[in-house]
Formats: sequence, C-alpha cells, structure tokens
Amino acid sequence: MLLKIDRNAAIPIHRQIAEQVARLVETGGLRAGARLPATRELARKLGLNRSTVYRAYQELWAGGYIEARPGSYSTVRGRLRPTSSAPRGGEGRIDWGRASSPPARRAYDDLARVSRESSVGVGARAINFSTLSADRDLCPVDALKRCVRAVLAARGKEVLDYGDPAGYPPLREAVARAMRVHGISISADEILITNGAQHGLELVLKLLTRPGAKVAAESPTYALAIPLFRFYGLSIREVPMRPDGLDLDILEKRLSRERMALLYTVPNFHNPTGITTSQAHRERLLALCEARRVPIVEDGFEEELKYFGKAVLPIKSMDAGGIVIYLGTFSKVVFPGLRVAWIVAPRECIRRLLAIYRFCGLSGNTLSQAALARFCDEGSYEEHVRRVHKAYRRKMLAMLRGLKQHLPARGVEWTQPAGGYTLWVRVKTKPPMDDLRLWKHLRGEGVIVTPGSLFFPGRPDGTCFRLSVSGPREEEIDEGCRRLGRALARVVEG
Amino acid sequence: MLLKIDRNAAIPIHRQIAEQVARLVETGGLRAGARLPATRELARKLGLNRSTVYRAYQELWAGGYIEARPGSYSTVRGRLRPTSSAPRGGEGRIDWGRASSPPARRAYDDLARVSRESSVGVGARAINFSTLSADRDLCPVDALKRCVRAVLAARGKEVLDYGDPAGYPPLREAVARAMRVHGISISADEILITNGAQHGLELVLKLLTRPGAKVAAESPTYALAIPLFRFYGLSIREVPMRPDGLDLDILEKRLSRERMALLYTVPNFHNPTGITTSQAHRERLLALCEARRVPIVEDGFEEELKYFGKAVLPIKSMDAGGIVIYLGTFSKVVFPGLRVAWIVAPRECIRRLLAIYRFCGLSGNTLSQAALARFCDEGSYEEHVRRVHKAYRRKMLAMLRGLKQHLPARGVEWTQPAGGYTLWVRVKTKPPMDDLRLWKHLRGEGVIVTPGSLFFPGRPDGTCFRLSVSGPREEEIDEGCRRLGRALARVVEG
Repeated sequence: MLLKIDRNAAIPIHRQIAEQVARLVETGGLRAGARLPATRELARKLGLNRSTVYRAYQELWAGGYIEARPGSYSTVRGRLRPTSSAPRGGEGRIDWGRASSPPARRAYDDLARVSRESSVGVGARAINFSTLSADRDLCPVDALKRCVRAVLAARGKEVLDYGDPAGYPPLREAVARAMRVHGISISADEILITNGAQHGLELVLKLLTRPGAKVAAESPTYALAIPLFRFYGLSIREVPMRPDGLDLDILEKRLSRERMALLYTVPNFHNPTGITTSQAHRERLLALCEARRVPIVEDGFEEELKYFGKAVLPIKSMDAGGIVIYLGTFSKVVFPGLRVAWIVAPRECIRRLLAIYRFCGLSGNTLSQAALARFCDEGSYEEHVRRVHKAYRRKMLAMLRGLKQHLPARGVEWTQPAGGYTLWVRVKTKPPMDDLRLWKHLRGEGVIVTPGSLFFPGRPDGTCFRLSVSGPREEEIDEGCRRLGRALARVVEG
Repeated sequence: MLLKIDRNAAIPIHRQIAEQVARLVETGGLRAGARLPATRELARKLGLNRSTVYRAYQELWAGGYIEARPGSYSTVRGRLRPTSSAPRGGEGRIDWGRASSPPARRAYDDLARVSRESSVGVGARAINFSTLSADRDLCPVDALKRCVRAVLAARGKEVLDYGDPAGYPPLREAVARAMRVHGISISADEILITNGAQHGLELVLKLLTRPGAKVAAESPTYALAIPLFRFYGLSIREVPMRPDGLDLDILEKRLSRERMALLYTVPNFHNPTGITTSQAHRERLLALCEARRVPIVEDGFEEELKYFGKAVLPIKSMDAGGIVIYLGTFSKVVFPGLRVAWIVAPRECIRRLLAIYRFCGLSGNTLSQAALARFCDEGSYEEHVRRVHKAYRRKMLAMLRGLKQHLPARGVEWTQPAGGYTLWVRVKTKPPMDDLRLWKHLRGEGVIVTPGSLFFPGRPDGTCFRLSVSGPREEEIDEGCRRLGRALARVVEG
C-alpha cells in the first residue's frame, strides 16, 4: 500500500491517509477482504505517531470502507457500489421534469426566463444600474463582528441551539422599537421574524391563498413576487400604477367585482417605479380594503430610505381594523446575507403564520438574529441607517441630476422618487422597440438597466426599464447617465 | 416641554429625547402644529451639545412625528393615527381563521395538538428523555467564534451580502467531502444547502407532490414530517416498521397498487424507533422503488452517529439509477441554531429544487454557511463528530444498561439502536392505557418521554413512547431508567 504523506499540507495527516485508502478501495486498488497493515506497522513505515494512523482507520471504518474486529486486522469491506458520479447504466430513471408538480414546473420555467433576461455579459467597464443589493462599500463588517463576538461570548450555547420559532425575543423587541419610529406601535408578539422578506411573503401566501385565488397587485410590481404568486397558482389581478400610486378607481371596481385573497402593495419607493403614495392615497386604499375585508400586504422593504419631502407613515400605522400585514426587512439597509426580515400583523394572524413556519422550517437562524438584536440595541443600526441614508440620498440626487442633464428632452420620461433605490424610465422609440432589445442596446453602450417587462405579470404597458442607485459609486452615476443619454438619443422618437 | 435626560443610561441621549417627544406627540401632550424649540435653544436648556438635539429631531422627522422646513422651526405633524396596540373600534375586521387556506388551518390545528401533547410541566428534577436537541454542553462555541471571526476578516462584505442560492460554494465542497466518507461520491452541484432539514423536506414536497398525492412513509415516523405532509395535502400511506425496518412486503404491495409521489424513509437510527436497516434491506428497498420509479427521500439526519456494529452505507451510496434524494444536516451533531442542512440529489433534480427555492426565499444565510465551511475545512467538524460520537455512544450504553437493569422483565420491550439518539419502548399495560395517559403517569414519576402517538399518521399500533439520550447528562440516565422502571412496574401486565 503506497501512501504519500505531505506534512506541510493544510489537510490533516490522518485525513490524507484515509482519503488515499478510500480512493484505493474505490478504484479497486484494494479489493474486498484485503488486509490492511496493523496501525503500529503502518505508523512505523510512514514515520508517524500510531494514534494518527488509528484515527485514519477509525474514519475509514466510519465511512464503511473497512471492517474491524477487536484484536484483529482491519479488512476492506465488500459491497461498495458505484455512486452517483460514477458512470451508470440506470441513470435518469426518473424524469424530474415529468415528476415535478405543476407549480414546480412553472417555477423552473420562470427561473429560466428571469435568468435569461438578466444573465448579463456585463463588461468590466459597464456601469450597473441594475442591482438592488445594498452597497458593499457601506457594509459595517466590524460592527457586526463585534456583535457576533459579544453574543457568542455572553450566550453562545443558547444562540447556537434551536431558538424561538417566532424569532429571537430581543430582536423582536428591537424591531418593535424600530417600527415605532415609523408610527407602528406594536408589541413583540405581533412580530414574526422570517428568513428574508421573500420568505415572509411566501408565508403570507401559504396562510391566505389557495390555488386559483385572486390577488391584487400593482402593475408593474416587484419582479420576484410574480413567480412566487405563480408558484402558488394565484391569478394576479393587475392594478395599473399612476404617477401617484396604484389606480384606486380601478382597484375599487375590481374589489367590487371579485373576491381577492389579498392586495400586495409597495407604497413607499415602489419597486420598480420609485413612486411614493400620499397620505390621502393610503387612507383611501385602506378604507377600500377595510370595506371589503381584503387583507393588505404592505411591503415596506426600504422604509428607512426616505430622502425628500414630508414623511408619510406606513399604511400599517393607520390600521385600526387590523387588516394590514406589514413586511419589513434589514436587507436593503444592512446585511442581506443574514436573511433577516419580519412580518408585523395582528396576533391571531401571527399565531397562524407561526404554525405554518413551524412545520415548514422549524425556526430561524438564532445567531444572526441575536447579533442583529445587539446591533440594534447598541445603536449601530440607527447610526448605520443615517450613514446609508446620506449616501443613497446623494446617489439619488446625482442620478436625478444626471438624467436631467444627459437624457433627451423628448421621448423619455422618468420618475422622481422620494426615497429608495429605484427610478422608472419610459421611452418612446422609433421604430418601436421592446424593452429587451432596448436593454441590449443600452448594454452595448456600457450601461446596465433592468428590463421593464420583468415587473409586469402580463404585458408591459410600453417600453420601460428600472434604474437603481444602489450599485454604482456616486462618481460613476453621472457617467452612467451620460451613456444612457447617448444610447437613448439614438432610438427615441424625437 | 419637559424632558428628562439620564446621562448614565444605556440608551443614547438623542434617542432619549426622540422617544420622549414621540411619546408626548402620541399621547397628545404635544398637538399637531405645535412648535418645537429650536435645536440651539433646547440644547442650551438641557446642557447638551446642539448636534445631539439635532440628531433627535432628525429621528423624529424620519419617524413622521415632526415636520421641518429649512431655516424654520420644526412643528408636530398632524394625522397621527391610533396604531394597532391602541384600543380600536374596528379590530377583528378579518377573521384570520376563516381567511386561512385549508392547509393553513390544518397546520394551526396540528400545532395546537403537538403543543398540547408536549407542553410539559417539567419539574426541575425531572429527567428529560424527550428532547432531540444536541447536548448544549458539547457545543464548540469557541471554534465557531474563531470561524466566524476568520470569515468576517477574510471576506466580510461578501458573506454579509446575498449569496449563491445553491449554498456557499466552499460549504458545498465540504459537504461533498463529508458525504464521500459515507460512500456518497458527488460533486458540489449535486448539493443544495437548505435552512435545516425540515426546509429541505419541504422543498422536496414542493417539487414532487401536489395536493391529494400519496406518499409512503414508515409508521411510526418522524413526528414533524406528519404535519408537513398534511400541510401539503398529502395522503400518507403508512408502511409498518418491523424490527428490521419498514415492512418491504407491504411496501411492495402498496407500490404495485398505487402511484406514490415518493417514499420517505429514515434507514439509520430511525426516528423514533432507533432501528437501522441492513444492507440487504436497503438493496431490496432501492430495487422496489427503482422498478416503480418512485423517488426515495432518505433522511440521514444522524448519519455520523453510528456506535455499534458494522457501518451500513446510505441508500444514496447505491443509487445507480438516480432516484434517491438524500437529506443531510449539521443540526443533530452541531449548531442547530445555524439552521444549515443539505439535499443531495441528481443535478436535474437540484436545479429544479433551486428554482423553487429562489422564488420562495432567494438564498440562505451566507455568514453561517461560510463559518461552517471553515469549521469543516480546518478539521473541527471531524474532531467534533468524534467527540460527540463518543459522548452519545456512552449515553446510549448507559441507557441500554439502565433499561435492562431497571425495567420490568415482562410487559415491556425496547429497541437496541446501533446509533443515534432514540429508542422505542412498547408497553403492555393492565388495564390498557393509551400513550398519553402513560406519559402523564411517567411524568408523575419525574421522567419525561415523548408519547408514541405523535409519530403515527394514523392510529398508534399499541402503547409506546420514545426515549432520547441527547438531553440528560450521562450520570442522570441510570436514575431516569430507575424511575421509568418504578413507574412501569405499576402499570405493566406482569
């Protein structure tokens, strides 16, 4: 048995032995029944401590490679079978596409579509107005490091064990405080911590919908809500966006004609358009849904990022009737990789969401929740929000300035967001161009946007695209707008 | 405006100001339109730095409490509404129970049932054989602390950002290596990292089932699989457990009569019975399902915890036909609070699971995955497995010894597990007693078990309960068995 030991390798020596023996067994270099050298013998041969060899053998035994009997030699086990990577006769016994449920098939097709449309050959010099991820340069790594260290030191065994399925209680307290700043006065048991806002929205769909149900949503709307609705077999009733928010007259008509399982809305810095609705709009919306007892799912994903004008409170803050389910998240402000978000809802609704969550995932990541709780409690969250608020506000100003300066005066329109990451651009081209062609044309000029059609459950209402300020550095924005202007000048109807 | 500042409090001073003003506004102490003192003035009055007051005002503004115009006084905003905690007339506009989908209602009822049956008035001196959580005393907090610190230092911004939905690539590599030890030779793209094994099982159900579909499962089976199956509207076809594993003759008959969407099985250290099937049993099971093209979902939740006898390789290791979906997890060995588990399946199956996961949750917790990858790569995982293996093996030996010594010689039977946490006890009582009454009786003697009926989709096949060795300390086990013996002696049919 020839083994090669590298004392300088990162892999522990016992593992080097185990892996080499395993390979010999797998490739037939060692046959079933073959006797392995005694640990003492092999140790001497390799100039190793006997315990190292012993450890390697234990591992091989645990892995089913060898058999061992006390006081006797170890031998290679029989019955090793070809495994999934090896060439096989029977592969493909199951056609996973055919075995898939209809919703699973829809999801697969939708993912292919989404991926095709956003799988960008982004050149290194391209300016990316497409991403909606928080700016990595602003990520407060050190503060988090400190928080993780502190919670592990103070209650390591607790936060590494299964936690409260509703979420780590101090985090729920911190979220309740943060919500209070936005006029939503709740206690911790009206909060359920989720693994991201998408997970929160999914839980709500599980609670309130069944296949075939109708849900009302803005059109355009959050792109990844669409395949999620489709996965749940929902029929999306589109309510067109106007410059002041979703069209309430159309909503009213729809609600009077059809029973909706819920209304999904993004009243602040709407994704994709960037539109923020007024207090009056929110009041009427709430009244309409209250009258019909239609739950409102309010997505407040960028609640903290209000830059200009008067603050408008969330619909949830006016929810005297308890019909609003509010989705909040840390991800657009800080640490999207921790996947921590929350649902605010009446207690009875939370209890029912929790039952579903228990069975579909048990509980969330306690360590991350505890670290975030500390991050909030020590004031780092507030401090960070102030910092990113300032930075994104500057970027948004740069974007608005750049668009004004560089975009053609006619044939192009864009929104004036009061906050958040995104703006929405409508283009009249000549000849007519769909948004995918336009997107490719822009990419050719070194500027990446998100094609508008991704945000429509049905047909887009024109040629449009989304811009986001989160990705590029402030100083790149003007150049990005310049490129955009140059590219659009060639295609717009003047 | 009377404000009380506590310079020694943990809460930053600006927040103290903001919170007090907010409370004044909410309680009507400050009316809409009321003018706030200028920042300079208030700072002087309170003996504070002006920037502190400025910060408080900014926060109040962001929270929608006050309005501010450049160069002018701040005033209290109007239109503050009662919020959800306040007394309300319209509360309860939606009956969340009636609004719930049928699966959501089932989950809610099931949770109530599960909670009732396990909500224990555990006395401080009770010995708990019920929990299935890894022993906290064994939790390697320091090693994890080191790993988190290292990944945050090396790639903090990356691991705190959205990650690869399939899982952090180095972790998938580490899992692939760990699986190789168990004879499953795969590459990283045959692995999907999930937020716990429950989440993995849910993803599989989403892929392969639709409401009304039939799934085969052992009876008894993993307790929390049952409400999950029920949530998905599945019809559970029970296959009775025999001393050597699920009854293959019955399975064969069932498969020949009905189309099953999948078979869910726990071949190693079965939960709850502790039974491990033989190589021959696995081969026949695989052949049966291959012939009918029924996907096998193999739950290997305690794969590392084999204590006695020859190692038997997972069914997945023999899966030449690519019909096995294997669920693995870290949680029974280490860090359940990180919620990291995995699915091993053919690439095409993984791709389809991934599409669903994308839309239902975007991605997992990258920081935890990166820390675990490091934990594996540096050899800490192996080392830890050895440690817990030894500890649980000793506990299991103590349990088997204790049961033999203290349990009545007749009327009680229990399994002899080859590994894992759990054993299964069957009791013949006189008069007949259901498992809940028995469970209460045992609790009265200071020993907590898990009632058997929780593990049966339908009617339990006798009076039985589960014991787990993970919770109690080794030295408590004998005393626990003694209590068990005392309690059972009084009720068994001698």
